[in-house]
Amino acid sequence: MVKVKIVGAGGYGGVGITELLLGHPQAKINALVDVENPGTPISKLYPHLAGFCDMMVIDPADPKANEPVDVVFFSTPDGVGMKLAENELKKGAKVVDYSGDFRFNNAQSYADYAKRIGKTDAHASPALLPQSVYGLAELHRKELNTNTKVVGNPGCFAVSCILGLSPAVKNDLIEITSIICDCKTGVSGAGKKPAPTFHYPARYDHMNAYKLSGHQHVFEIERELGLMSGKDIKVTFTSQVVPVCRGIMSTLYGTLKNKKTEAEVLALYKEFYKNDKFVRVFESTAPVGSPHVRGTNFCNLVVSVDERTNRLRIVSYIDNLVKGQAGSALQNMNLICGLPENMGLERPGMFP
Amino acid sequence: MVKVKIVGAGGYGGVGITELLLGHPQAKINALVDVENPGTPISKLYPHLAGFCDMMVIDPADPKANEPVDVVFFSTPDGVGMKLAENELKKGAKVVDYSGDFRFNNAQSYADYAKRIGKTDAHASPALLPQSVYGLAELHRKELNTNTKVVGNPGCFAVSCILGLSPAVKNDLIEITSIICDCKTGVSGAGKKPAPTFHYPARYDHMNAYKLSGHQHVFEIERELGLMSGKDIKVTFTSQVVPVCRGIMSTLYGTLKNKKTEAEVLALYKEFYKNDKFVRVFESTAPVGSPHVRGTNFCNLVVSVDERTNRLRIVSYIDNLVKGQAGSALQNMNLICGLPENMGLERPGMFP
Amino acid sequence: MVKVKIVGAGGYGGVGITELLLGHPQAKINALVDVENPGTPISKLYPHLAGFCDMMVIDPADPKANEPVDVVFFSTPDGVGMKLAENELKKGAKVVDYSGDFRFNNAQSYADYAKRIGKTDAHASPALLPQSVYGLAELHRKELNTNTKVVGNPGCFAVSCILGLSPAVKNDLIEITSIICDCKTGVSGAGKKPAPTFHYPARYDHMNAYKLSGHQHVFEIERELGLMSGKDIKVTFTSQVVPVCRGIMSTLYGTLKNKKTEAEVLALYKEFYKNDKFVRVFESTAPVGSPHVRGTNFCNLVVSVDERTNRLRIVSYIDNLVKGQAGSALQNMNLICGLPENMGLERPGMFP
Amino acid sequence: MVKVKIVGAGGYGGVGITELLLGHPQAKINALVDVENPGTPISKLYPHLAGFCDMMVIDPADPKANEPVDVVFFSTPDGVGMKLAENELKKGAKVVDYSGDFRFNNAQSYADYAKRIGKTDAHASPALLPQSVYGLAELHRKELNTNTKVVGNPGCFAVSCILGLSPAVKNDLIEITSIICDCKTGVSGAGKKPAPTFHYPARYDHMNAYKLSGHQHVFEIERELGLMSGKDIKVTFTSQVVPVCRGIMSTLYGTLKNKKTEAEVLALYKEFYKNDKFVRVFESTAPVGSPHVRGTNFCNLVVSVDERTNRLRIVSYIDNLVKGQAGSALQNMNLICGLPENMGLERPGMFP
Repeated sequence: MVKVKIVGAGGYGGVGITELLLGHPQAKINALVDVENPGTPISKLYPHLAGFCDMMVIDPADPKANEPVDVVFFSTPDGVGMKLAENELKKGAKVVDYSGDFRFNNAQSYADYAKRIGKTDAHASPALLPQSVYGLAELHRKELNTNTKVVGNPGCFAVSCILGLSPAVKNDLIEITSIICDCKTGVSGAGKKPAPTFHYPARYDHMNAYKLSGHQHVFEIERELGLMSGKDIKVTFTSQVVPVCRGIMSTLYGTLKNKKTEAEVLALYKEFYKNDKFVRVFESTAPVGSPHVRGTNFCNLVVSVDERTNRLRIVSYIDNLVKGQAGSALQNMNLICGLPENMGLERPGMFP
Repeated sequence: MVKVKIVGAGGYGGVGITELLLGHPQAKINALVDVENPGTPISKLYPHLAGFCDMMVIDPADPKANEPVDVVFFSTPDGVGMKLAENELKKGAKVVDYSGDFRFNNAQSYADYAKRIGKTDAHASPALLPQSVYGLAELHRKELNTNTKVVGNPGCFAVSCILGLSPAVKNDLIEITSIICDCKTGVSGAGKKPAPTFHYPARYDHMNAYKLSGHQHVFEIERELGLMSGKDIKVTFTSQVVPVCRGIMSTLYGTLKNKKTEAEVLALYKEFYKNDKFVRVFESTAPVGSPHVRGTNFCNLVVSVDERTNRLRIVSYIDNLVKGQAGSALQNMNLICGLPENMGLERPGMFP
Repeated sequence: MVKVKIVGAGGYGGVGITELLLGHPQAKINALVDVENPGTPISKLYPHLAGFCDMMVIDPADPKANEPVDVVFFSTPDGVGMKLAENELKKGAKVVDYSGDFRFNNAQSYADYAKRIGKTDAHASPALLPQSVYGLAELHRKELNTNTKVVGNPGCFAVSCILGLSPAVKNDLIEITSIICDCKTGVSGAGKKPAPTFHYPARYDHMNAYKLSGHQHVFEIERELGLMSGKDIKVTFTSQVVPVCRGIMSTLYGTLKNKKTEAEVLALYKEFYKNDKFVRVFESTAPVGSPHVRGTNFCNLVVSVDERTNRLRIVSYIDNLVKGQAGSALQNMNLICGLPENMGLERPGMFP
Repeated sequence: MVKVKIVGAGGYGGVGITELLLGHPQAKINALVDVENPGTPISKLYPHLAGFCDMMVIDPADPKANEPVDVVFFSTPDGVGMKLAENELKKGAKVVDYSGDFRFNNAQSYADYAKRIGKTDAHASPALLPQSVYGLAELHRKELNTNTKVVGNPGCFAVSCILGLSPAVKNDLIEITSIICDCKTGVSGAGKKPAPTFHYPARYDHMNAYKLSGHQHVFEIERELGLMSGKDIKVTFTSQVVPVCRGIMSTLYGTLKNKKTEAEVLALYKEFYKNDKFVRVFESTAPVGSPHVRGTNFCNLVVSVDERTNRLRIVSYIDNLVKGQAGSALQNMNLICGLPENMGLERPGMFP
């Protein structure tokens, strides 16, 4: 039994991993920790959990919050996990952090990221960076093993873009200066904190682009694709929000170096993901949409070649809260705990 | 292992029971039958099932569709199950029918219903009526046993109303002429067939009352409450549709015969449902809403007494496609197959 | 030209009256006043107004905010208008207040209301109460004339209920102890301030009842119906919110004193509203829904008699932000300024 | 007074122009024609029009449908207008056609389009093509004059893309082989006919790309941009649908030929549209979204330069049913009838 602690348990990232762990046969939640709402049962914050998980949310200072566990999930903003991880590791835990704190496994790369998101401070635990692993199992499965101590769980947009572009980059199909990521997210990606732009009357028939000057997820996309290609890669990235609750649809473009038919590219994509349970590859005529991954850990990729313009186009669908967050986190936990990768994640979702 | 056949597999009722059966440890789907889309994999109709259930939907004439099974779910309109049930019973199956065909266990009661919904024909299998059981486990658990052959699965609105009113009627709390059921349903209650009134642009910011002259579910509410009270009961019933996908919120009113405090009524409701896993009773200040039952087999009841007008008011929440349809159907299957009542149904749903 | 000042200009009530006044041929906005966002153009808060109204929102202390005008709209919470109205009257303005401050034209009635909503203080300007008029033109058109100085603009739920019930109460059709108002509102009724319960991900597939212990609008319903009938009336009132942006659907019930057919009641309703441009009366089979009044000042009433239970049922639809707020306010302004009642209000809305 | 006939009056395009004409001071609807629902008042099909327009929808064979008028709007599918236009012209009318029939003013260009959309037949009235004008006033205002007889009203996606890209193409800012149009539409773009993919339960939390092999609007984008640049232009175009009712958000990409700052490009865009009432240009940090153009004839353009990748990015917002259809049609009518271009179109919309 894997004993688990969730820090930041009251947010969408926290409740997401809680829901998944409740259906996991080899995990047990030891503590739900949050600076907000300590003393409140999680099932009061999330009444659908009543009878399934009625544990109290506790303060970080609570003794129970400091008991040793096997895995700690930090569902916390940038800057939290990096300060607390070391102490957890000392107590024998492994750490899966949802923020950007451990997504870059060297100090320079982290510093570039930190600067870009407006953080000038150095990393609080630079010694941990070289041992941290970017938690996208499809690319880093070998490094995500029982020796792994720290996982930087990937950003939701990044998951959709990296999975969509990796086969093309790895196979050197596209001009690396030509990559565009046009990404649309559901509103849950913004978390549970109310804000004017996510107020129902202001959002219900509303789509818009935002952060046009730069989204924080672009750096891990560039870093992962760069590592893969051995070259410096810069992408144009557009973040947009549309009135769905759950889901990301990223439409990814790149100019083909050499003419390829859709069938050829499709074959390469299927080959690339042939051992990846959670990635499904479709031809361009398949009727794929975000509901087909809603509530699941799947990434659905639609492959299309625009022969008129010699351009590759991939449409990548995930549930931002599952494959884009808690699902990947659990997939990572399984791997670093030596459990079957898909344990507790094989569920088809619900329709409609 | 319970071998199951689903007739009408391509509709929302069919895919709902399929989703649930995929997570049920003691059931196995033997055939998915439908007159529409035979030859199409169910996972093409419902792509979220890809990799979980890729069985072909087959025509009723297909030999595979006629293999003996243990349980047949008829997720079909009024008039279908009554014609096909007998043959299934002869082959040794038990039948759970989603329509009104078996909700009335005597010919007169059925005839009243049939007339009201505009059907003048007599029941096609009147001999089966006396042995059919109204499939609301909370009221008819004893009759839903391994000897039961035919279950009339209840209507979605009826589930919400009957569960909400039973403790009051059983305890003789309210004037039986005073009952009003003000019911709001999500759009999925109308099934998967497109229609102008459910077209997204026409429905997205739209709420309305419909069938003001009478909804078919009112008869089973009156019959069940009547049987319980030993009196003839007539209720005013208003069906309304609001732009949610899943969920029913029924607000139920009755004049109290004698003054009662909310605490007294609450205690009676909790006592009434103390052995019912899937009914949760709340006080009037509890923040309960339809998402708390979405995707689950729960019915959440909020008890309120308006002391100024001496009126009882119950707000009853269910997921119309689960407790209001496939979930109750599976609960019934469990009971009539001698399995634990909640097998395959204990899931908390997902939020947001 | 009527010179107008809007206090509380930055909220939904403020922008609603601003939108209407921009299309009104005899009105001119002199000042937009708000304690929040002073110094910001209204078209920055509401970018759809760019080029139509780019006036600055100004602080109440701004000299411009204190210039004399003809009409002041107080789109402010309870307790604000009552303190500021007198000063405006002295400067020669008339006042239309959106809150409960002037909906009760005697001190005792106001005190009952104030106590119920948890305000213990006495009215700040009791001398104004006897001259205030409840601003529902369909009932109080005669009192809303050029001599009127103070109007208490009605609550949104109250508009829908009072218009729906008045013909029945006036014609003594129903038992006055039997009245139930089952009301559903769109989310914009809560205003523009974000809150957890109106956060898009938490609201999008969510319906719920709230304030079961008593909503503030119930008192004006009881008062208006009481004045009309000459009797003390108490109603059971249920407020519910569903995921639409704009719209109220109130389903109103009352037991008929004497048998009436739907046709008879329909005739009475049509007669009652024969001179009311903004009330449309429909038979029970008419396909009426909230979009048919969205963006308009209309109230659509569907008349239904449940002969099986001898109960009258009226379904009343309004746009909560127009007929339920700014539209009624403008209708009142027209009347007290001697303008045609429907000036600036005759627009059909937009579909879909 | 301009006498108008609307053919295809029962669809969203028909009701859209009807709504606008009702508020137009110089137009009068003479006939509403449709092959569906003849004999039904338009206000029965669209109840929000009750009291504003209760005209009967009439069959094309009805004598009233054949009375001479000044302007005929064909809100009909491809292939209808081209057959009926000539007869209308003979009777003295001008024609504004919503389909692709008159968007290409030479036979070869039309033939290329027709072939691509799967129509092999030649144009039914090739003689009319040279005199037809592409009805985007911002580009073709001079040709849209009182001598103009036939207008090909533009496609909704095309409006958003052409307005967004024209200043860049005209000023030779971008590599013409680098253009990508990533377009998202609301569901009303599909018209009023119900279909499984627009059924509320299947659409409400659903976004997807479609027609990846080619959307019909791409040809007019390429033709208009090609005419402007004097070169053959091919674009990659992605059509996507998201669960909003009204709105298009097109994100447009092109590689800059020479380095430009956002400020420089912004200045060029503002200059380009300085005389265009209905185009508003914003910097990249402005909080612009689809609600700001909803219900209006505006196009909001957000200008952004990604200096890291040397790429221009324009986000273009319109209401697909107004500027993308009926609004442009009315703007065209105004121009070809010698009326002020913005007559009947100056409305700010409504929020929320």
